Amino acid sequence: MNSGINRQILLVDKPAGKLGPEHFDMRNGTIPQPRDGEALLKVRYISLDAANRAWMHGATYRAAVEANTVMAGGGIAEVISSKSPGLAEGDIVFGDTGWQEYAAVPAKHLSKMPKIEPMTYLLSVYGIAGLTAYFGLLDVGKPKVGETVVVSAAAGSVGSIVGQIARIKGCKVVGIAGGKDKCHWLTSELGFDAAVDYKDGAVFKALKAAAPNGIDVYFDNVGGDIFEACLAQMNNNGRIACCGAISQYDGAPSATGPRGVPGLIVVKRLTVQGFIVMDYMERRNEALRDLQSWVASGALKVQEDIISGLENTPQALIGLLAGENRGKRMVKV
Amino acid sequence: MNSGINRQILLVDKPAGKLGPEHFDMRNGTIPQPRDGEALLKVRYISLDAANRAWMHGATYRAAVEANTVMAGGGIAEVISSKSPGLAEGDIVFGDTGWQEYAAVPAKHLSKMPKIEPMTYLLSVYGIAGLTAYFGLLDVGKPKVGETVVVSAAAGSVGSIVGQIARIKGCKVVGIAGGKDKCHWLTSELGFDAAVDYKDGAVFKALKAAAPNGIDVYFDNVGGDIFEACLAQMNNNGRIACCGAISQYDGAPSATGPRGVPGLIVVKRLTVQGFIVMDYMERRNEALRDLQSWVASGALKVQEDIISGLENTPQALIGLLAGENRGKRMVKV
Repeated sequence: MNSGINRQILLVDKPAGKLGPEHFDMRNGTIPQPRDGEALLKVRYISLDAANRAWMHGATYRAAVEANTVMAGGGIAEVISSKSPGLAEGDIVFGDTGWQEYAAVPAKHLSKMPKIEPMTYLLSVYGIAGLTAYFGLLDVGKPKVGETVVVSAAAGSVGSIVGQIARIKGCKVVGIAGGKDKCHWLTSELGFDAAVDYKDGAVFKALKAAAPNGIDVYFDNVGGDIFEACLAQMNNNGRIACCGAISQYDGAPSATGPRGVPGLIVVKRLTVQGFIVMDYMERRNEALRDLQSWVASGALKVQEDIISGLENTPQALIGLLAGENRGKRMVKV
Repeated sequence: MNSGINRQILLVDKPAGKLGPEHFDMRNGTIPQPRDGEALLKVRYISLDAANRAWMHGATYRAAVEANTVMAGGGIAEVISSKSPGLAEGDIVFGDTGWQEYAAVPAKHLSKMPKIEPMTYLLSVYGIAGLTAYFGLLDVGKPKVGETVVVSAAAGSVGSIVGQIARIKGCKVVGIAGGKDKCHWLTSELGFDAAVDYKDGAVFKALKAAAPNGIDVYFDNVGGDIFEACLAQMNNNGRIACCGAISQYDGAPSATGPRGVPGLIVVKRLTVQGFIVMDYMERRNEALRDLQSWVASGALKVQEDIISGLENTPQALIGLLAGENRGKRMVKV
């Protein structure tokens, strides 16, 4: 057991502006003893998510991460020992393990996962990313055959799956991503009909060219200016699925919101709906059946971005917020 | 037939900023001859609506009103002669008559109305205002017994009915209106549980006191700062019914939108939905049955604000945009 040492990454300071390495510190903690109802976990993969940054602000769907505690984060872990009847040594679980090598977590906060290969799929296509894409697009966005679906952060963990599901469902798919390489990857590898590079000038105009018939479903991962540009190009009775607002997380709160709210929402009869994937967990198997069959047939490609070493977790998150990942980013502990 | 003269009010100039009397002019036109399929109408009551102002901008659910044409507007009129088999002399109709004494309108653009007393109810509780309140609150807002419903422009034509329907449906109702008198009227006469005077300092704080358990349904007539204040106080899974944005109509387009979009929509899993009452016209009778029974039982009070004389129509709209009306404002021609 690594001679009893539990390497941990602490959030030592809550960022007021941009997140940097100075907000984290590493320490050698001890391996905890599980109490009744808990399992002792060895963390295998830590999930990096834009939401990690939002948790530092507070005002999200979970309690804020406090300074000088182990940084919170979802992970895939193996049960080392258990004081809960529901879990046994060798089980694979998903839960908020935090950024550390070992964690003792109440079994009721853990989800037992099937043993699949590669295990990383439990964080990507069959994990939060895949389920978020599935329910957000199909349940909130409600795309119909032939409609135009636009997704932002399209090369990211959720966006890359959203666009592929939309394509499978017979929609015209436009991705918004940063950089020529990502955009080329979306159209050449993932089957998007078009891609807009938000780093290459005005999104509004490029989007107009890529989606000349307007937007029926916009899957929003970013908020801000891109939300505004899409809102202005929505068709009547369109749907905006609000999944996240990564453009707003890493810095001070924005002093303004997107223009056109609520005026355009009225005249275009739009439905703008936020969702949190946790609310869909009862319907998880429904999603997994579809996702597994699409992966098996090759219709859905899985892209992962795996970084090795717990010590690289802060930089992995900082880079994710800057948009450097392609597909689901995680750290192999 | 008034010696063949048809008094008309023209929009002579499209306002860039605030609407004023200088944007209108009156002229003596001629009474038109109805063509095949048209009816000649004598206009009885002209409806004043915040939307009239929005139509001057364009970018609404109808074509923009052009300068140097008769100002557009809904009205209740009597058929004088008809060249359409569906309409006969003496019929009462609703349609876009424009601001004038006589109009020849294609019958397919007119709705034949029942002959009820007072006729003005066809513009207020049984007209666009009542139907907008009914479908917007019940179909879009979906209030449940015991929930808190907040409505802005609460003393207006739509808001005053929204609040009363919410009360009838067993909700706690908070109205936002301008001025002590209106607020007192909402609570003492219409049965609102509380009222917030937006002219009396910070809406956010007063709303917090009036709706201490947060907001489940916000019926938005105004947009802008009040939208922002309500958004910030929505409960999880709340609904915002976007009916209009009167704060945004009378002036240059706003350079910013409300803060918290889309961030709060995500974390609170809100549904923000725009609607146009015209989309509900097939279900009109369903609404009328309920509205009539509530009016008959005294549960729903009808408030009208009737101004006499076609020549006063411009000032009636200017005053409505400044919030001077209580209940449904119309002009008796």
